[in-house]
Amino acid sequence: MTLQLTMQSSELSSDELRSLEDMRTRCAKNILLSTSLAGSGHPGGSLSTLDNLLVTYGCMRHDASDPGMDERDRVIMSIGHVSPGVYATLAEYGYFKEDDFLTGFRRTGSGFPGHVERIVPGVEWDTGNLGQGLSTAVGLAHGFKIQNKPNRVICFMGDGEQQKGQIIEAIRFASKYKLDNLIVVIDRNHLQICGTTEEVMPQSVRSLYSTNNWDVQYLEDGHDQNAYFQTFSKAYRKSDGQPTVIVSRTTMGKGISFMENIAKYHGSPLDREAIGKAMTELGVEDEFEKWDALRQNPVDTSTIQSYKGPAVDIKAGETIVYDAKTILDNRSAYGNALLSLAEANNSGSDMRIAGISCDLEGSVKMGGFHKHSPAAYIEAGIQEHHAATMAGGLASLGLVTFFSTFGAFAVSEVYNQNRLNDFNHASVKVVATHVGLDVGEDGPTHQCIDYLGLFQNYFRSSVFMPADPNQTDHIIRYVATTPGNVFVGMGRSKMKMICKEDGSPFFDENYSFAAGKGDWLRRGHDATIISYGAVTPMVMEAWDMLIDAGHSVAILNMGSLLPIDKEAVLEAAECGVVLTVEDHHVETGLGSMVGTILAEAGKGITFRRSGVSQYGGSGKPADLYASQGLDGKSIAAKIVDMLS
Amino acid sequence: MTLQLTMQSSELSSDELRSLEDMRTRCAKNILLSTSLAGSGHPGGSLSTLDNLLVTYGCMRHDASDPGMDERDRVIMSIGHVSPGVYATLAEYGYFKEDDFLTGFRRTGSGFPGHVERIVPGVEWDTGNLGQGLSTAVGLAHGFKIQNKPNRVICFMGDGEQQKGQIIEAIRFASKYKLDNLIVVIDRNHLQICGTTEEVMPQSVRSLYSTNNWDVQYLEDGHDQNAYFQTFSKAYRKSDGQPTVIVSRTTMGKGISFMENIAKYHGSPLDREAIGKAMTELGVEDEFEKWDALRQNPVDTSTIQSYKGPAVDIKAGETIVYDAKTILDNRSAYGNALLSLAEANNSGSDMRIAGISCDLEGSVKMGGFHKHSPAAYIEAGIQEHHAATMAGGLASLGLVTFFSTFGAFAVSEVYNQNRLNDFNHASVKVVATHVGLDVGEDGPTHQCIDYLGLFQNYFRSSVFMPADPNQTDHIIRYVATTPGNVFVGMGRSKMKMICKEDGSPFFDENYSFAAGKGDWLRRGHDATIISYGAVTPMVMEAWDMLIDAGHSVAILNMGSLLPIDKEAVLEAAECGVVLTVEDHHVETGLGSMVGTILAEAGKGITFRRSGVSQYGGSGKPADLYASQGLDGKSIAAKIVDMLS
Repeated sequence: MTLQLTMQSSELSSDELRSLEDMRTRCAKNILLSTSLAGSGHPGGSLSTLDNLLVTYGCMRHDASDPGMDERDRVIMSIGHVSPGVYATLAEYGYFKEDDFLTGFRRTGSGFPGHVERIVPGVEWDTGNLGQGLSTAVGLAHGFKIQNKPNRVICFMGDGEQQKGQIIEAIRFASKYKLDNLIVVIDRNHLQICGTTEEVMPQSVRSLYSTNNWDVQYLEDGHDQNAYFQTFSKAYRKSDGQPTVIVSRTTMGKGISFMENIAKYHGSPLDREAIGKAMTELGVEDEFEKWDALRQNPVDTSTIQSYKGPAVDIKAGETIVYDAKTILDNRSAYGNALLSLAEANNSGSDMRIAGISCDLEGSVKMGGFHKHSPAAYIEAGIQEHHAATMAGGLASLGLVTFFSTFGAFAVSEVYNQNRLNDFNHASVKVVATHVGLDVGEDGPTHQCIDYLGLFQNYFRSSVFMPADPNQTDHIIRYVATTPGNVFVGMGRSKMKMICKEDGSPFFDENYSFAAGKGDWLRRGHDATIISYGAVTPMVMEAWDMLIDAGHSVAILNMGSLLPIDKEAVLEAAECGVVLTVEDHHVETGLGSMVGTILAEAGKGITFRRSGVSQYGGSGKPADLYASQGLDGKSIAAKIVDMLS
Repeated sequence: MTLQLTMQSSELSSDELRSLEDMRTRCAKNILLSTSLAGSGHPGGSLSTLDNLLVTYGCMRHDASDPGMDERDRVIMSIGHVSPGVYATLAEYGYFKEDDFLTGFRRTGSGFPGHVERIVPGVEWDTGNLGQGLSTAVGLAHGFKIQNKPNRVICFMGDGEQQKGQIIEAIRFASKYKLDNLIVVIDRNHLQICGTTEEVMPQSVRSLYSTNNWDVQYLEDGHDQNAYFQTFSKAYRKSDGQPTVIVSRTTMGKGISFMENIAKYHGSPLDREAIGKAMTELGVEDEFEKWDALRQNPVDTSTIQSYKGPAVDIKAGETIVYDAKTILDNRSAYGNALLSLAEANNSGSDMRIAGISCDLEGSVKMGGFHKHSPAAYIEAGIQEHHAATMAGGLASLGLVTFFSTFGAFAVSEVYNQNRLNDFNHASVKVVATHVGLDVGEDGPTHQCIDYLGLFQNYFRSSVFMPADPNQTDHIIRYVATTPGNVFVGMGRSKMKMICKEDGSPFFDENYSFAAGKGDWLRRGHDATIISYGAVTPMVMEAWDMLIDAGHSVAILNMGSLLPIDKEAVLEAAECGVVLTVEDHHVETGLGSMVGTILAEAGKGITFRRSGVSQYGGSGKPADLYASQGLDGKSIAAKIVDMLS
């Protein structure tokens, strides 16, 4: 039976205080042992935040025997480096044996990594890059509001990390959306790696929150467990529309005399001699050798959990097929599909699909969704870093979350935020409009030509690029009903539908989109053009010219880029001539993917790549395409040249 | 002769006011015409900020006949979309003919792009992504302080963009470094795309600055040119250690009755009928058809300037050669080289080399540099977005600027900031430590395995990866003395020197590093291993094992990845068996570059890639390498398998 503090009390009982004191001693010992055994890690901050961690877990709703319980409160550790403190605390509360933690900490494959990861039972979110945790917590808190659930969210932060700009974005958002189910605890020890926070970068932490209408509570002695209990339990119960921050004045290295207020213990473990002294100060046995010997044995990985996302039950709704005469932009098809999904899944107070935009609702065509499901539409302002991370928090609650803005902001600006969502299997649907040279006159800063180049660096995300509004509809319904992080990109312009040779829409009601599957728009035996997205219509134009010139050319359209259809690429290579065409940086997109597939298969064929080979200009898309050899005429000329 | 306002006066004269009024009318006309002629663009904000722009250029030091004059003050337009207002103003001040602007605006190849770019004479910085401009301006202002120059920096910002988190990072930095040579002008029209700033994301703009010790000046009527003149000229002259922000209460669409306070005119031009009405309100002739006809002619690109960076005169200093027995980390070799460069180039108050770190001075080994050149060492706090952008501003003044932190923060976190530096030919030296699985126990959030995958998406940056401390020394001296944006990455661990077969250091005093040139560490005829950076020592181990097993294997080390040595890759392919090995995501690094080179050359050979094929764990680097097949034994086994 683990400790459960009596939240109704006005103060901690002497029994409770004694339990906490015993727990603290064991945790301090384990923090110091684990880091010294591993030869690396962060003991200073772990000791600094330990008291607040222990009381928090004693107060909040959670159950170690059911770590995935829906009703649990969520703890997000924005300071992922205090993992020894977190693991020690979770062991006390019964999530796993301290033995596993001590023998496994910071060992390859052990399940107890240096920054907290959700493979550890009880950990909710992989963190490590400072500044992102609050946005995740805000996403969870707002998600609970959307779902009308009473769960609380607690976010532990450092004081050094308050310097990160993303934090004020999250602060503002929490204030705008009145997230009184959110409690932030700041470990205010005034030390960061290179000195005091005042020396490194002066700021007023409290005014950062108070000027944005948070309830700011300051604890002069953050190690006073009773004071923290009183403040925390009051914040936990309230429903006044204000998020709470508890600024807890603590001491780095608390409890070990020679570690207190020494910045180097942020990231340095004690040496063997100092461990002995520390154990004496704690009044416990020095077990270093015992555990060091146990670490030589194979690691017990039985405690490692494999993360499962929440079950999501989403109806795909009715496919919309635009007829061959329709001229439409993919953006509008996205907006229509999103509205249709909302109609099929969001009703009354039961919201299954959420949408986030950043001051671009009209441009990304979320207006219909907003009108239908105002409670699930989120306006995040010009705060893309926060919005992208928050999307991960929302999605992890089982809300299917669409995050939409221009490609340059949804991808290029938030690369590292999307990366953390990828770590966390967060299942965010990033749908970016205004991708590629198709953006036109707004020029190179707004032309996102790196979405494939960026998403390829993750391991758990897909990239789908619709070639017309019909394929857009299929893809949006597919991603809404299929778990996983995904990027869907589209241009800005209106276009004709891609059609079969008989003139009917190619992506009609009988079409079925599948990840990792390309589509042969045309068959031919002289050469194959592999393409996707906004330039496919130009490839179709080239095909017409080539047919007239007597060339039989195949067109392979890759709606799915990640994963890519390797079999289809190798089939394309059989004709001996392959050209890739894309509205993307020529070095980092489909062309290099295809090139690598060919090289690994040992295929020595005629192969070339067309793409964006310099920053785009500011002008009409057709002119920009022509200037980079991506218009129909240039594409046809390249094939003719390759065949000659 | 263009307008020059008398800064010594307490107010504008009636002549000056009359001149400004005439200029305003012509500019308003040109803003409306240019956007309507182009069929896109941002007239609302251009009219909103126009009065402040006109007075600013009348006050500041600049010379249209010599746009690159060293003594000029710098204007950074963080709101790059108000390009019509900027171009109209610059035309008034003689930088080019209004004809070129009106016929060329937002036309492919015209030289007058939709967001301001420095190809336009008088524009100092390409912008477009909101939130970055202030950091650039701060970099310029701090650079002038380091260089002991009196130049002023003026940064125009919007009010919507105050939501971006990067801004508070820049605000804090400017306050810490007392940049009283910086004036920020905020166009406070209370409108952003989706509504009022209060609706979209509530915040107090003024307290954002005042709580960080800025001098905050509020103008109740931002269109009152005399009031602005008085406030601006006072801020321009002061030297009290406080940066100034002028919050200028303006009206979007100012001066055209039916445009005022209408959010849609943020990004929508007037239609033909509305243009007529607007010209009537301005009391000018409606010249739409005249200019529309002129736009049909070929564009005059004579005004386009090609950007030249500042001349930089840097001494390379004395090469350091570590002998074959030395065990050292590349980080320390970097620190030693940087100190040596400081000794050779920074003396007294003449600083040629600057260094920026983000709370990691010790880890990135900048301590020696800091001690030698305290005036040129910059501690930016945990504010990487600001730091990366600021580096571009500093570097553009001719200060050779090294920006160093861990790879995950120098690359992954600031991808879009480095991208803007790439646009701007900023010549920043990003030197990242803690790159790859070599980071070890800190785990995947800290393991930067995407540096090549990311930098390949730019067009103007190089990537160099030293294989040992000796190559590090050569590369650091090379990048310090060669203009251009560059990334140099290195791991965390100590290593042996790479040696020739005779046992002496390979990268010795006779070695010369060159961009785009690989080095044959070993020659052989059965197979070639292509590698770089932290895994080259493992490849050398594999080579020893392979020799013992009777295989003749070549090792090609790619110190330069961008540009890459294509000739050497094709030479490597001649033996028919090529394996790439890298401490990088296997899909986005050297392997896919080599694969694409082989495919484009039509080489059907035996080709494989080894790299990081899943997120790294938390453990010792050697264990992590072994777990992903990157240890010497695994590499040797792969070659044996490929040869069988």
